[in-house]
Amino acid sequence: MKRLLLAVFLLFSTLSVSAQCLLRGTGDMGVIIERASGSVQVVDTTLKKALFHITGLGDLSHASVVYSRDERYAYIFGRDGGLSKIDLLCGTVAKRIVQGGNSIGGAISQDGKLIAVSNYVPGGVKVFSSADLSLVVDVESTPVNDERRSKTVGLVDAPGQHFVFSLYDTGEIWVLGLKGGKPELQKFKNIGKQPYDGLITPDGRYYIAGLFGEDGMAMLDLWHTEKGVTRIMDHYGKGEQKLPVYKMPHLEGWAMAGDTAFLPAVGHHEVLVVDRNGWNEKGRIQVHGQPVFVMARPDGRQIWVNFAFPDNDTVQVIDVETMQIVKTLTLGSGVLHMEFTPRGEEVWISVRDKDKVVVFDTDTLEQTAELPATKPSGIFFTARAHKIGL
Amino acid sequence: MKRLLLAVFLLFSTLSVSAQCLLRGTGDMGVIIERASGSVQVVDTTLKKALFHITGLGDLSHASVVYSRDERYAYIFGRDGGLSKIDLLCGTVAKRIVQGGNSIGGAISQDGKLIAVSNYVPGGVKVFSSADLSLVVDVESTPVNDERRSKTVGLVDAPGQHFVFSLYDTGEIWVLGLKGGKPELQKFKNIGKQPYDGLITPDGRYYIAGLFGEDGMAMLDLWHTEKGVTRIMDHYGKGEQKLPVYKMPHLEGWAMAGDTAFLPAVGHHEVLVVDRNGWNEKGRIQVHGQPVFVMARPDGRQIWVNFAFPDNDTVQVIDVETMQIVKTLTLGSGVLHMEFTPRGEEVWISVRDKDKVVVFDTDTLEQTAELPATKPSGIFFTARAHKIGL
Repeated sequence: MKRLLLAVFLLFSTLSVSAQCLLRGTGDMGVIIERASGSVQVVDTTLKKALFHITGLGDLSHASVVYSRDERYAYIFGRDGGLSKIDLLCGTVAKRIVQGGNSIGGAISQDGKLIAVSNYVPGGVKVFSSADLSLVVDVESTPVNDERRSKTVGLVDAPGQHFVFSLYDTGEIWVLGLKGGKPELQKFKNIGKQPYDGLITPDGRYYIAGLFGEDGMAMLDLWHTEKGVTRIMDHYGKGEQKLPVYKMPHLEGWAMAGDTAFLPAVGHHEVLVVDRNGWNEKGRIQVHGQPVFVMARPDGRQIWVNFAFPDNDTVQVIDVETMQIVKTLTLGSGVLHMEFTPRGEEVWISVRDKDKVVVFDTDTLEQTAELPATKPSGIFFTARAHKIGL
Repeated sequence: MKRLLLAVFLLFSTLSVSAQCLLRGTGDMGVIIERASGSVQVVDTTLKKALFHITGLGDLSHASVVYSRDERYAYIFGRDGGLSKIDLLCGTVAKRIVQGGNSIGGAISQDGKLIAVSNYVPGGVKVFSSADLSLVVDVESTPVNDERRSKTVGLVDAPGQHFVFSLYDTGEIWVLGLKGGKPELQKFKNIGKQPYDGLITPDGRYYIAGLFGEDGMAMLDLWHTEKGVTRIMDHYGKGEQKLPVYKMPHLEGWAMAGDTAFLPAVGHHEVLVVDRNGWNEKGRIQVHGQPVFVMARPDGRQIWVNFAFPDNDTVQVIDVETMQIVKTLTLGSGVLHMEFTPRGEEVWISVRDKDKVVVFDTDTLEQTAELPATKPSGIFFTARAHKIGL
């Protein structure tokens, strides 16, 4: 009897870990960054509720997230160089390292096996195993002087096991290939002054770096790297008075609708409308403030835009076909990020100063839910696991 | 002591179900249909292995699958009218109904709450709750005579909680709207003879029905249903001798690469190349046989094609940029389906008569794995949960 009891207890104790965890699908999950408290919420996008609250993740003031290909683990890139692997099913920190002094985002390789992190200090990109966060490759950026190397920005993944990123101080784009394990590095120099962020088209073909130090943008066709980096939108901003820039726009929220790309203009109250065939400007849409994220609803019928301080209490919705603003929402100050559900029926919006995340039906443009969150910033859903360049 | 033991046993018994199930992410899972035995394999696309084998699913000779928005459940549409809800984590049949006499595919609504099934007999579309498969709406198709109604084909989901489908016998396209619960039906008549399958562009805007009874295709712009159905590719096939058609091509494997769509030609050894701006033919690619599935790698750089009997031992890979065939693979007879991993690094191909599924690296075009399967046909990965129209 005693042995039976012991056996039962042993069996139960081996189960107890999973009993704390959730047996469920992970396709409708996500993470909300709570920037001020170094914590995240793990959320369910079907029931629109929080499942776990995880603390101790360091400085998350500019944090971003990528997902493992099984959508179980979130990799969180903190501003302080912290890289945390979160288990969404158990609400735990599976692994955490501090891999640099000051970092600015990351990416996951096409096959899901590698995590790359873009660092300001020490300048460069480090690549880790997604399994255990052990270091695989350390790519040092170009030295600026004896003391430091260039900051790296705009890091994305690309097909064929590539990572692409820009060097802010030295005006370069680098392509890191890791197919077959042996790193290969292609460097493109003199691409323009101060690339501040990069994006890749949803098909993984065109990498585009926004330039802070001059007009236009730098574009690399990854199907034809032999053609080098070309300048696009060169006239954009030329001779115009820029407003002071309180917050740099993000280019990751790349918005493509059919042949048309919508991009935030730096230092202007405008969204740029660009024809993807030839990359020429075909219009500008006057908006409420300086755009930060310019994001397409997954079906490409609407563009949602949020703004920099002092206009960061507002979200505007642009109808793609007419290029008209069809809705202006005033949600409270500190609208920092937006994330669409994978098939686009809803959008989640973080409102920092109201300590909440609001959910809108993208068809009726009515609010459908609200979740409490402490100073929420980025919102990232697991469907990103399946996308190139996110 | 007895009470403690009982409590432990009760606690254990409540856990025992989940102990049989897998605590894991569901983003890298999928289903392989074993058509002859009415069974499926649940697979892991990271480890490339089977996790569960599930039997008793009826006639799966033309089966297709959609996924719940949490990627835990697969809904399998059998030829015999069977609709089975499979639990991928537990390897069990969560629910099974026989909802019609002869059915041909289904779809899941944008919000994941509704499952629609397209029926030959009795002709029409039935809509079920994705939770418990209870009937929500029964849409009867147009009567052909006193005895039967038109077959329905080409059923897809579209944004705004819509389903779109075609009526084979009566030459119609219907749009069923279920936003807010109250069904609204729009009917478009005289769209052409014998629409045999339909597709929707990845953005959910254009619905296109292939016509078996005449040349050209019928197209409906869902952003502008007031414009009605228009004929596209009207010249295609005109005055040409068609080959006998042993297997109708599938249009669901819609291949878009940038502005260009690649479509299987019915009764010809050709892939049609169509400019999406204006929907005009801009070329034809001569291929090995009559194409069945014409599918784009997720980054749109390659098109993979399989063929109808007697050429169904072959797969060809077309380079999108040059429109040249870059690889011809001979894999054994009965190559029935292909499925790309979500970010496109690999493709899984079923080879019925060799009782196996082979996996290829889409970059090197080399085989990387092989899985045994009994007469495999369709392969469906969970990432479909996040896509419009799949």
